[in-house]
Amino acid sequence: MYDLVIVGGGPAALSAAFYAQNKRLDVMMVYEELGGKTNWNRGLNAATPRNGLPGNEMVDMLVLRTARKGRVIHDRVVSVQRRDDRFALATAQGAAVETRAVLVATGATPRRLEVPGVQHLLKQGLGYSLTTFAHQVEGCRVAVIGATPRSLRGVAEIMHSAQHLYVISAEPELPDLPFGEALRRAPNLEVLTGTAIRDVIGLDSAKSVVVECDGTIRHLPADRIFVDLGLIPNTGFLQALDVLDPDGFVVVDEVNATAVPGLYAAGDVTTGAFGEQVLIAIGDGARAAVSAYEYLLAGQLGALAPAQA
Amino acid sequence: MYDLVIVGGGPAALSAAFYAQNKRLDVMMVYEELGGKTNWNRGLNAATPRNGLPGNEMVDMLVLRTARKGRVIHDRVVSVQRRDDRFALATAQGAAVETRAVLVATGATPRRLEVPGVQHLLKQGLGYSLTTFAHQVEGCRVAVIGATPRSLRGVAEIMHSAQHLYVISAEPELPDLPFGEALRRAPNLEVLTGTAIRDVIGLDSAKSVVVECDGTIRHLPADRIFVDLGLIPNTGFLQALDVLDPDGFVVVDEVNATAVPGLYAAGDVTTGAFGEQVLIAIGDGARAAVSAYEYLLAGQLGALAPAQA
Repeated sequence: MYDLVIVGGGPAALSAAFYAQNKRLDVMMVYEELGGKTNWNRGLNAATPRNGLPGNEMVDMLVLRTARKGRVIHDRVVSVQRRDDRFALATAQGAAVETRAVLVATGATPRRLEVPGVQHLLKQGLGYSLTTFAHQVEGCRVAVIGATPRSLRGVAEIMHSAQHLYVISAEPELPDLPFGEALRRAPNLEVLTGTAIRDVIGLDSAKSVVVECDGTIRHLPADRIFVDLGLIPNTGFLQALDVLDPDGFVVVDEVNATAVPGLYAAGDVTTGAFGEQVLIAIGDGARAAVSAYEYLLAGQLGALAPAQA
Repeated sequence: MYDLVIVGGGPAALSAAFYAQNKRLDVMMVYEELGGKTNWNRGLNAATPRNGLPGNEMVDMLVLRTARKGRVIHDRVVSVQRRDDRFALATAQGAAVETRAVLVATGATPRRLEVPGVQHLLKQGLGYSLTTFAHQVEGCRVAVIGATPRSLRGVAEIMHSAQHLYVISAEPELPDLPFGEALRRAPNLEVLTGTAIRDVIGLDSAKSVVVECDGTIRHLPADRIFVDLGLIPNTGFLQALDVLDPDGFVVVDEVNATAVPGLYAAGDVTTGAFGEQVLIAIGDGARAAVSAYEYLLAGQLGALAPAQA
């Protein structure tokens, strides 16, 4: 029986582990991969150095100070059930773990673009994070596939440096945003709604995006292609608990608690704002750990007091 | 005219600067001291190493990557005024700065205990952070001066390791907390409400606390004395703007925005939860910076679009 099981190995999970170990809780981490999305090379170019990205140094430090000294199961959690005042977790390879509290930081995975040309272009002009590489589009023709609030913030960011921008969305209109109207009036931006992606063209570098709208095929010239079709939260294992929003994100309050006592969550798996930013995930992971710690303290005291009354 | 002025030099301010510099904003930091409360030796003993405290390494890294390469005014901000769509800041030594957005991370200062004996005992058995040094009370008689939610969490934490505990508060009752009832029933804890502190006794180490209740003086034996009389937020310079709660903390929403467009805040100067934790302040500083950045982006696009319509 553990005090706290932390599910996930990314920035939020590591930060939570750092706090919980410091408080001398009996902690188990369960993850498949350490470092989370900071391990990915999400750039346009395979040579982008990992340490050039903000927050990665902090994650490296957290890895040194937490995961390498604590207990870990290298596996994927497939179910979490609450029984009385504790949780039972099961992993894909059959491990079973009991714990007083659970902290979920399993992240969210970008929805992939499923067209044949992607395999030639990934990291060769096609990428999944516009914001991180906003400075690599100077003078380029940029196609942004998907109109999420996040991709449109990215578009706003590169508006001045890109030569020409396409925003391509299958939806009938853009999401409502403070700067949406200004975006629509920008002279170097073309918005294509109700438009499907048929392929991306190029061998070692991006050449164009093939789109279809109202039965018409167009080839849009593009040197840089960014895909942002939204995030899919990794929360399948939480289906039994009533803590997910319609898109599958974990609903948390201002202290990173869910509606289930003893269950906390942090990072981009939650409904919290900007959880995809490494530094913000680190902060929210710590906040979730403080909340879990208070819950455990209250439980300990509650167990202590009646026996001595 | 700057894009963003960051007021403060602690974890939240440094993290915000890190994000804003990465986004190539024109940033000015205004602070008196770099590192904020992580510079303080808040321990019971002057020999406590700074690096032993969680989060300090991260602050050191942020200092290296931000403040030493950005622009800084080493001074205290005395006023912030909003004029049209910009802010005018004035410092104690007469500097005037104009900026499009402001991020406040000036922290909060523990309210001091004002009795003669404190000067002999500070860092010699008397300290201001119970939680950080919870592991140094094993078998001790501990007096906790002040019953804030924070000090009571600390009390819950050391309940098992301390030999005996006093919680002394001038208020008529304890604040309402989930584990309050369990605290009251603990056998090794004595709660003294409606009680004033007259002095703390000891020369090189704590001996006792002198209290007065209903005209009666008592000497309570104590080897460790922790003072937590609450925090005083450093927000005097924001009086002109309607963004403070009755205790002077900056009211922020879930993205660290205040009610004044363009004004953001992070860390323990705000109403946000657990902002005194270094990692949480780092996360909230980054979140406030993302919000400020979105505000600035919207302004840039707004200025751009009409001229070209």
